[in-house]
Order: sequence, then C-alpha cells, then structure tokens
Amino acid sequence: MAKVLITGVDGYSGWPLALHLLSRGHEVVGLDNFVTRKRVKEVGSWSATPIPSFANRQKAVREVLGKELGFHKGDLSNYDFVRQVLEAEKPDAIVHLAEQRSAPYSMIDVHHAVETQVDNLKGTLHILYAMREVCPETHLVKMGTMGEYGTPNTDIPEGFFDIEFNGRKDHLPFPRSAGSWYHWSKVFDSGDVMYATKIWDLKTTDVMQGVIYGIRTPEITDDRLLTRFDFDETWGTALNRFIAQAVLGLPITAYGKGEQKRGFLALEDSMQSLRIAVEHPPNAGEYRVLNQFDAAYSINELAEITCRIANELGLHASIEHPADPRVELEQHYYNPLHDNLIGLGYRRTRELSEVIREIFHDLVRYRRRLEARRHVLTPTVQWRVADSRPLLAARNAPANATTEEPLEPPSERPTA
Amino acid sequence: MAKVLITGVDGYSGWPLALHLLSRGHEVVGLDNFVTRKRVKEVGSWSATPIPSFANRQKAVREVLGKELGFHKGDLSNYDFVRQVLEAEKPDAIVHLAEQRSAPYSMIDVHHAVETQVDNLKGTLHILYAMREVCPETHLVKMGTMGEYGTPNTDIPEGFFDIEFNGRKDHLPFPRSAGSWYHWSKVFDSGDVMYATKIWDLKTTDVMQGVIYGIRTPEITDDRLLTRFDFDETWGTALNRFIAQAVLGLPITAYGKGEQKRGFLALEDSMQSLRIAVEHPPNAGEYRVLNQFDAAYSINELAEITCRIANELGLHASIEHPADPRVELEQHYYNPLHDNLIGLGYRRTRELSEVIREIFHDLVRYRRRLEARRHVLTPTVQWRVADSRPLLAARNAPANATTEEPLEPPSERPTA
Repeated sequence: MAKVLITGVDGYSGWPLALHLLSRGHEVVGLDNFVTRKRVKEVGSWSATPIPSFANRQKAVREVLGKELGFHKGDLSNYDFVRQVLEAEKPDAIVHLAEQRSAPYSMIDVHHAVETQVDNLKGTLHILYAMREVCPETHLVKMGTMGEYGTPNTDIPEGFFDIEFNGRKDHLPFPRSAGSWYHWSKVFDSGDVMYATKIWDLKTTDVMQGVIYGIRTPEITDDRLLTRFDFDETWGTALNRFIAQAVLGLPITAYGKGEQKRGFLALEDSMQSLRIAVEHPPNAGEYRVLNQFDAAYSINELAEITCRIANELGLHASIEHPADPRVELEQHYYNPLHDNLIGLGYRRTRELSEVIREIFHDLVRYRRRLEARRHVLTPTVQWRVADSRPLLAARNAPANATTEEPLEPPSERPTA
Repeated sequence: MAKVLITGVDGYSGWPLALHLLSRGHEVVGLDNFVTRKRVKEVGSWSATPIPSFANRQKAVREVLGKELGFHKGDLSNYDFVRQVLEAEKPDAIVHLAEQRSAPYSMIDVHHAVETQVDNLKGTLHILYAMREVCPETHLVKMGTMGEYGTPNTDIPEGFFDIEFNGRKDHLPFPRSAGSWYHWSKVFDSGDVMYATKIWDLKTTDVMQGVIYGIRTPEITDDRLLTRFDFDETWGTALNRFIAQAVLGLPITAYGKGEQKRGFLALEDSMQSLRIAVEHPPNAGEYRVLNQFDAAYSINELAEITCRIANELGLHASIEHPADPRVELEQHYYNPLHDNLIGLGYRRTRELSEVIREIFHDLVRYRRRLEARRHVLTPTVQWRVADSRPLLAARNAPANATTEEPLEPPSERPTA
C-alpha cells in the first residue's frame, strides 16, 4: 500500500481519486488552495452538484468510508510550503492535479493567459525541485492532456516515436501542437518534467488525459461525497454543457461542424487509470507517457447520444450548430494510440451512454441550480479576440442572473 | 526604412543591433530594464569591457554616429507598460531580445529556474497580446536558440519537417529537447509565438540563434560604443572563457570530452542576419523559423584555435578537460540546416580565427578587469545539483575577490 499526495484534492478528479485510493487501502494526503472554487465564481458560475466545505468533505469521508484523509491547505507557488509538505509526508507517489485546467479561462485575456501559464509552470517546477531536494525516490504522476498533441494527420503515439529525417534515425518526443494557452501550459510542464527526470533520475509518469465524463464513482455512496459538475462555458466540458442544456430545455449547441474528435474516458475509469499508474511506478530516470483515454468521439456523436437519451427521458432535446468560438480543425483525422495502460491492466468498466443516463439522473435533482445559472451556458470567450472580458461581463450582468440564490449551500464557501 | 523596437537594447546583442540598424538608416527605439547588469553583479562578475550608463550610450550614439536612439525604461512584466510603448511607437518590427539568456543562471536553484521561465514567458506573452491589441501588422522577430533542438541523431531542419508515422504523413514542428531551464524557456516561447501567429494572423520570425562570438561590429568605432564581454561561468560563453583564461595565463578548460558541437556566428553576422529578417517580413499568419548560425564547431576545436592564437601572441596557453558540470552528450552527431537566411541574402563576412584575434586585442587592453574578477571563471553551477548557491557563495567569498575595484566605471550603475 502506498502513501499518496494528491495536489488539487478539492478538484473534479482530485476528490474522487482520494476516495478511490482510500477505499483501495492506500494512505492519502491532499493539498489544495481552493482557487478553482474562486475562479468558477469569478466567471459567474457554480457547480451543479453542491460542494461542501473541505472540512465537511473530510468529515463525510470519515463517516461514510471510515477513513482519514490528511490535508494541507496552501499554494504550490510558495516553494517553502511545497518543500515542507514533502518533508512532512515523504509520499511514495505524488499525483499532481493542482493546475488551472480550463482552456476558455486561459483565453479570456492577457492576464488569464499569463496566470494560467505562470501558475501551472511554477507549481510543477516547485514540485520537481522539492522532490529532488527531499524525496528523489518519490514517483510523480503529473496530469497532462491529450490536447498537447493537437490533431495531426497521423496516428498519435504515447509521447515518443521513431523519426527518420534526411536518412538518419532517432527516437524523439512527438511534436506538440496545443490549442489554447492552457493546453500549451501542459506542454511546457511536460518539457520540464521530462527534463528533470533526465538530469535528476526521477521517476515520472506524464498522463496525457482525455476528456473525463461523469460525476459518480462506486465510492460516492452519499451526496456529501459528490464531486463537482461544472457546466458553464468556461469550466464545463462540451458534454456537460449538452446535458445541462437538455435538462433546461435549451438546444444542445455543438460548435462549428461538430466533427472535432477527442479522446474520452469515464470518471471511474480515469480513477482506475491513475491508480494503476501509482501502483506501477517507472524506474529511476524513466519518463513514462500514458495516453489515458478509452475511446474517441466527435462532438456530433456526443450531441446525438445526449439528444437521444434526453428524448428517451421525455426532455424534447434538439441540436444546433453555432459558430465555433475556438480556433480548431472542425474536420480531421484522429487516432491516438493508448496501449500502455492496457498493458498495465486497464480494462473499461463504464459505457458512455450508461454514464450519460446517470448524469441526467443526478442533474434533474439539481435542476434548480442549473436554472439559477443558465446564462453561463452562453459562450463569450472567443479565441480570436484578445479581450473577452466585456462580453463575459455583459453576459453576467444582473439582468441575466437570478437575484435569488436557491440551493447555494453555505458549504460552497471554502472554510477549511 | 523601418521603425524597429528592440527589447533588451542594453544587452550584448541588442546594443550592436541598434547601432547597425541606425547606420543602415532605420529608425530605432530601445527598451530595457537593465536587469542583466544587476544579474551579472549578483553572481559576482562584470563585463570585461566597461559599459557606460545608458544615457551616456545614447550620447555616444549621437556624437559618433550622428543618430538619435529612442528609449523606454521599463519591464516587460508590466503589461500596461508594454501596451503603452507599442501605442506610442507603432513599430514596423519588434526584435525581442529582452530575456534571461544564461543557461547556468537558470540552473543555480529553484528560484532562478522559476525566475527564468516565468520572466521569459510573461514578457513574450505580453508582447504578443499588445501586438494583437495595438499593432497586429507589426513583425515580431523573437530570439530563440539553436539549443531548443538539443542534439538529435538526425539533421535538424528549420523548425518544421515532414513526418511519417504508421503510414500517414504530416508537416509538424521538429521535436525540441532543450538542455537547461533557460533553453526550455525558449522552447515555451516558441510554442506561444507559433500559437499566437495562428490564432491572430500575426507576422513572426523565430530565430534559432547559434552562439555568438565577438565584441565589435563596423559601427563600433569608439570605446564608448563597445558591447558587453561576459566571461564568468554564468554569463560568458565557452569561447569567452577560453580567451579570458588565455589572457590571464590560466589553462583553457574544455568541459568533459569536448566533442560537444554547437552552431556559431560572429556578432557582425548575427547583426546582418537580424537586419535581413527585419527587412524581409513574413506574410500575415506566417510563423517563420530561421536557424541563425554560420558554422558548427566542437568545444575542442574552439579550445585548440584559441590555444594556437594565444601561443602566437606569446601567451603560453594550454588545454585541460575538467568534468562537465552540465548534463549533455559529450559526443554526438550534429548537422543543423541553415538555408533560409542564405536564401534571404545572408553571406558570411567574418572568420572565427580573425574574430578571436580581435577579441584578444581588446581583452589585453582590459586585462586588469579580468584580473579583478578571475575567480568568476571557476564553475560552481552543477546541473545535477538542486541548489548551487553555497558553492557560488564560497567562490565569491571576500578572500577570492580583489578588494580594490580597478577600472569599475561609475557608469556601470544604470542611471538612465
């Protein structure tokens, strides 16, 4: 059994990962600065599922799972804090999820672009240096994204590939072509992690994560243990937006041609994958890349499956195609390889349509929280525009927001 | 004739570039925060050539060249400042040289690593956003480094190459494998510049610059116009160190096996190359990569040429091979392509051995300034060590430094 430090434990995947590792007998310590709660509020939104304070989350873990979840409140931008946490905990593994994770948030304006790239880079560098100084044997599992690769007209290998150029050969990193300042921040982190591994003989796993869907894992047997469900244009995924739109009786908006394809993975299978990575560390000096997704779908496929299930549930859904606010290929080849995790024992446990039904079931219960923030579904952040703040502010103007705030749990305020 | 803004105009290549462009009839405005002067002092060193205050540099330009050099003092980390400068100047081209440029400096400890990557990233993002908001027609010439590519076992193309993977083809960025936090910061900048060009249809040139050698260009006809000559382990190049060692009668130290090869370029030919880039802007939406070097040499070749010339000058030089403080291949294939600049009209004007003779001629005049800082030639920054500050501090302890400070011009303090 391993001792695992999860940075970003209060986040969408950090929280269920803590529950999953605890239930499997691992010791878990979390770290967070609660900045995602603040940033979601900044764009006028909230999680559809009410999220208790962290102290109440810890209490629920104790009561429901009978486990103790350790916690350090603090910021990875403070090197002394990072070093002190590693000195106190000496974890076997660190799962590093504490990064600004929204592409649209990074594209709002120059300040959000800089905040995203600087915070993500600094946090990762601080963890690498603290590992080198305190616990070089620790295994770092760093969360990247499949979006680092972009959409090349070839298959996408897992990190590295054989190249031939002018008659000579080498085995090199696959070229990255990210699609937002956020995605580039992940490319930069990958460079730093790869380099630190080389010069300091660290053990690292770089997870090229697909888009995760779902709110529940088997450990979430009580509403107090639910994870976030973000549905606004900035923090929600396209699938989350589609389901929220269907619940609210709004048209499902698939941007552009809708033939943009990405790799996807159920929340439960993402937790399985991260646990497998933690339980099978690489060797010292090995920088291992895992393409962590289960299947590729186009935006149109997601919209159509959501629409079909919504109609089965009597929700009268329909699909629209507004202009794409992003700069991305709307039709392209897409075939990333993902054999490494399967080789380590990964097996799919959830099917997309089954999870979508489960999300509908939960969201109908929290329909009033969607209603109260329905304006945040409107896209305002435009990739080709340098400053989207005026549009964002206009969308969130008092006239659009419900003045009453139903179902806002006092726990939404971080108090831990 | 173009109006050119040079960021980092007070630096080693920014200064002679200003003189060169002015003498060719271009209008030049500079920008600097004088942080290189501060950082060189921080590691206990100075430039062998005394550098006047910026106000005196401007005065010398007026008196010697009969030209006016505009100037804005300020920091690229302040977005409002960057935007205001672009609004005031609306330049045809920006040559962006204002970055932390030392690999060893970035490897001193975690704080220098973070400072390097954050400052470089932030400055470049601020320029890109300010261009998008104020002057999207401006041509950005951004200084990268040949070190972004590392030393792959194939030829190195200029930025992009044709790949074939699993039977399908694409034209993608050549994989980067940098060799220090500093070099990685340049890789990150390249990603951001490439991406901004794509989403905002900017005109950009990314210069993969080789190592520059030399102090003089034809415009430097007066000692007040000299550029920096850094020779310490942190800020000096290997060749600068070799020449300084030979002048001081110390052994020339070629680290490791000495078969490390890099691309090199005379200062005058680097200025020629940058002028050519400025005078031939790419199209809107075009991200152009230039491998800017003239010839590749191994460290041993540089040491041998330096040793031979030193002996011709009666300096009794010899070569030693201490352990390499860096993590790098000491024997490798190296053949980067560099056709793009030749296609734009670049022709070599200086030969390596001729420039080395010229540097010896200047350094003998400033021998007392080398003497007074001879301890800074000792390497202290180790790539495999997380914190090299104790070694650096011990080397610079009062016992090693000369207490008298000969030839320190009051002008070394930035006052402009």
